[in-house]
Amino acid sequence: MSMHGTEAERALAEQVVGRFANTPDARLRTLMQSLVRHLHAYVREVEPTEAEWFAAIRFLTETGQMCDDVVRQEFILLSDTLGVSMLVDAINHRYATGATDTTVFGPFYIEGMPERAYGENMAFTPGTPALVHGRVLTTDGQPVANALLEVWQTADNGMYSGQDTAQPHGNLRGRYRTDAEGRYAIRTIVPVCYPIPTDGPVGRMLNATGRHPWRPAHLHFMITAPGHSTLVTHLFNQNDPYLDSDAVFGVKPSLLVDYREHAAGEAAAQQFGFEGGFREARYDFVLERA
Amino acid sequence: MSMHGTEAERALAEQVVGRFANTPDARLRTLMQSLVRHLHAYVREVEPTEAEWFAAIRFLTETGQMCDDVVRQEFILLSDTLGVSMLVDAINHRYATGATDTTVFGPFYIEGMPERAYGENMAFTPGTPALVHGRVLTTDGQPVANALLEVWQTADNGMYSGQDTAQPHGNLRGRYRTDAEGRYAIRTIVPVCYPIPTDGPVGRMLNATGRHPWRPAHLHFMITAPGHSTLVTHLFNQNDPYLDSDAVFGVKPSLLVDYREHAAGEAAAQQFGFEGGFREARYDFVLERA
Ligand SMILES: [Fe+2]
Ligand SMILES: [Fe+2]
Repeated sequence: MSMHGTEAERALAEQVVGRFANTPDARLRTLMQSLVRHLHAYVREVEPTEAEWFAAIRFLTETGQMCDDVVRQEFILLSDTLGVSMLVDAINHRYATGATDTTVFGPFYIEGMPERAYGENMAFTPGTPALVHGRVLTTDGQPVANALLEVWQTADNGMYSGQDTAQPHGNLRGRYRTDAEGRYAIRTIVPVCYPIPTDGPVGRMLNATGRHPWRPAHLHFMITAPGHSTLVTHLFNQNDPYLDSDAVFGVKPSLLVDYREHAAGEAAAQQFGFEGGFREARYDFVLERA
Repeated sequence: MSMHGTEAERALAEQVVGRFANTPDARLRTLMQSLVRHLHAYVREVEPTEAEWFAAIRFLTETGQMCDDVVRQEFILLSDTLGVSMLVDAINHRYATGATDTTVFGPFYIEGMPERAYGENMAFTPGTPALVHGRVLTTDGQPVANALLEVWQTADNGMYSGQDTAQPHGNLRGRYRTDAEGRYAIRTIVPVCYPIPTDGPVGRMLNATGRHPWRPAHLHFMITAPGHSTLVTHLFNQNDPYLDSDAVFGVKPSLLVDYREHAAGEAAAQQFGFEGGFREARYDFVLERA
């Protein structure tokens, strides 16, 4: 390669950066100019063939076209599987505040799911019956009353309702609220590990790179309360075989819970209407003041 | 920010890189691991908010969804407007071979356009009549017989046929072949400058960053001949006002041509059937041996 050639290649990045010099919004200017420098540095480092470049164009196009308006967001999956979502999460939660750790939002949230009463069952498909309960607290240990907990998990077939259209509306999804003592209770089934969708470009990428698509079993939470920062997190089953190799890098040790066995007939079984034995996980969430 | 936080953020990139360690294909492994390092370096540098990250996800999704199977390829437009297409072009054509300079392919090529005879008119919409002709040569100056020249340009309204469905099929597109002396001749209209499409995400990006969408007037060529490398290039009108600010960074000085005026009634006018005056551009292409 001629020095002249690679000098011209470096100069091209700065020419493109210069083209963004008149961006009115200073933050957008920074985002675009830094993007151009890093993107060009990547391309100069790997020196793609024209066929490789076109394969990348096709991959990105198909990733966009795989998205729908309901629960399939292939670009979030791509960001998740490249660890970018967890990096953004880390950057935005650097300070130890005493609040509960955050993790990825994921692509399967649906807005406006049914409001459910304290302890109401949200599982309309089979699984191991479970109670997930605890409190929502401030960082100084005070209960947060009337906090909204939006909750979602897959059915035992590893699919979310909406994604799997055979499931009843709102299956394994719900909006719960804390009571005056900050308590919440969710009757559900024990989450199972599941593969992220492998029928699209991200699945092909995982397959081509020898990566598995599995996520350890988890229950998603988005918790909001006036005067507090929104908390997006999961609770992970502490005995899951994929805790060390989550396809989206989402596991944090502070988010593991134990689903303890309970025999039929205990007081909690009566209170929450379990007919046989059930599992119980307990977790107190802590919200940061906004 | 705590040191612990940013150390963990750097460690995340290496954790993701490690997840690609078992990629069977060594080249794909390199492409993915380098991508992760550069992408994470970008994100660590700009520290996006969660809202900015989600805006990027939305932008990429809409870019994929703007593509169709005909002539709209918004990810190529994005690559073009970020200078990445020209960088890939430069990397793949580093050695001075004596062949004609290359430039971007662009998103508007259509396969299988009509075969046209030597000097046949490909313009079925109004414009300034023009003859574009010359020879296709080897790097040692020998004519290349029966080379295929695929040619495309916009109509005077700045739109390509296919993109503008009101234009007749094959308007301002054609497949020409060289004769035994390597000569080609295209009867057409003088190309005009045109804006790249601004009704999609790329157009919104240009608008938000204070960049104009214009490309200097040009005629696209893809030239193929057995035993030679395919040549993808343009001829640019040498007096165009956008030569110094092409929205896709495609201009190279060696690719400028002059459309000289000719009066009605000259010999060439007779030969190619021009009824009035016309313009003439002459260019000899040089193909590299494969
Ligand atoms: Fe999930
Ligand atoms: Fe063009």
